[in-house]
Amino acid sequence: MNDAAADALRPHELAVQTPQRFDAQLWFIGRIRTPWTQRKDCPHRGDAENGPDCRIELFEPWAPGLTGVEARERLQILYWMDRARRDLVLQNPKFGDSATGTFSLRSPVRPNPIASSVVRLLAVDGPVLTVRGLDCLDGTPLLDIKAEFGALP
Amino acid sequence: MNDAAADALRPHELAVQTPQRFDAQLWFIGRIRTPWTQRKDCPHRGDAENGPDCRIELFEPWAPGLTGVEARERLQILYWMDRARRDLVLQNPKFGDSATGTFSLRSPVRPNPIASSVVRLLAVDGPVLTVRGLDCLDGTPLLDIKAEFGALP
Repeated sequence: MNDAAADALRPHELAVQTPQRFDAQLWFIGRIRTPWTQRKDCPHRGDAENGPDCRIELFEPWAPGLTGVEARERLQILYWMDRARRDLVLQNPKFGDSATGTFSLRSPVRPNPIASSVVRLLAVDGPVLTVRGLDCLDGTPLLDIKAEFGALP
Repeated sequence: MNDAAADALRPHELAVQTPQRFDAQLWFIGRIRTPWTQRKDCPHRGDAENGPDCRIELFEPWAPGLTGVEARERLQILYWMDRARRDLVLQNPKFGDSATGTFSLRSPVRPNPIASSVVRLLAVDGPVLTVRGLDCLDGTPLLDIKAEFGALP
């Protein structure tokens, strides 16, 4: 399945007319480097124990914001799933007999395609973090890094 | 301390020149109702066990996206901390002897002020959810609701 086919509506899915105006704006503060270059290759969910090492590269002027991050074992990473459509409220990810609401899923297809993963921090080298636990495409735009005090999934 | 004083730079904090252009846009998909109307009254972190009941009100056209959400015990809520400045990379939240990088904190002050909380779902009534575990101001814009499979914090 290529990315165009992944964007077609499946049985029981519902797309809505989206609002004409947006309400807020984001900066891409960095870029995520992973082994996956096609959506079909991405894992369903990141594995902070046994997944591959991935890199998070901070852009200027944000790199000083990493001060002290080396003391954190776990981080929450927010990123922008820029290839997903944003107008589906009912989805049928497994081509089943019925669809499920977007807000009871973690699918990349959602009004605001912000993904959230908890990762294990392995190394900090200037503006570059090495982490384990991501599941996104290579080149995915980074939105935020936060201290994470919960347990790893 | 009022909100204006909360916005002043503290010792050792560092503000940067932010990028001239934004990279992506968001819709506010709903509104969060909590007991807190001033930042100083908000809890440091939500309490999904003993915190007060809060409401999440979905806007149209997104309400059908709640289909099936009643089966989830826990949800991840993303919201927009629209009162916080976005240009600090070093912060000194406790007025200490040094500042810490934004990305090793969970402060509302960050380039993309997206907050993330895991809540317990108590009730669903049409486009309105009752949940426990939020820490934000009354009227905070909602960005996303996701199934949450991790443990409560």
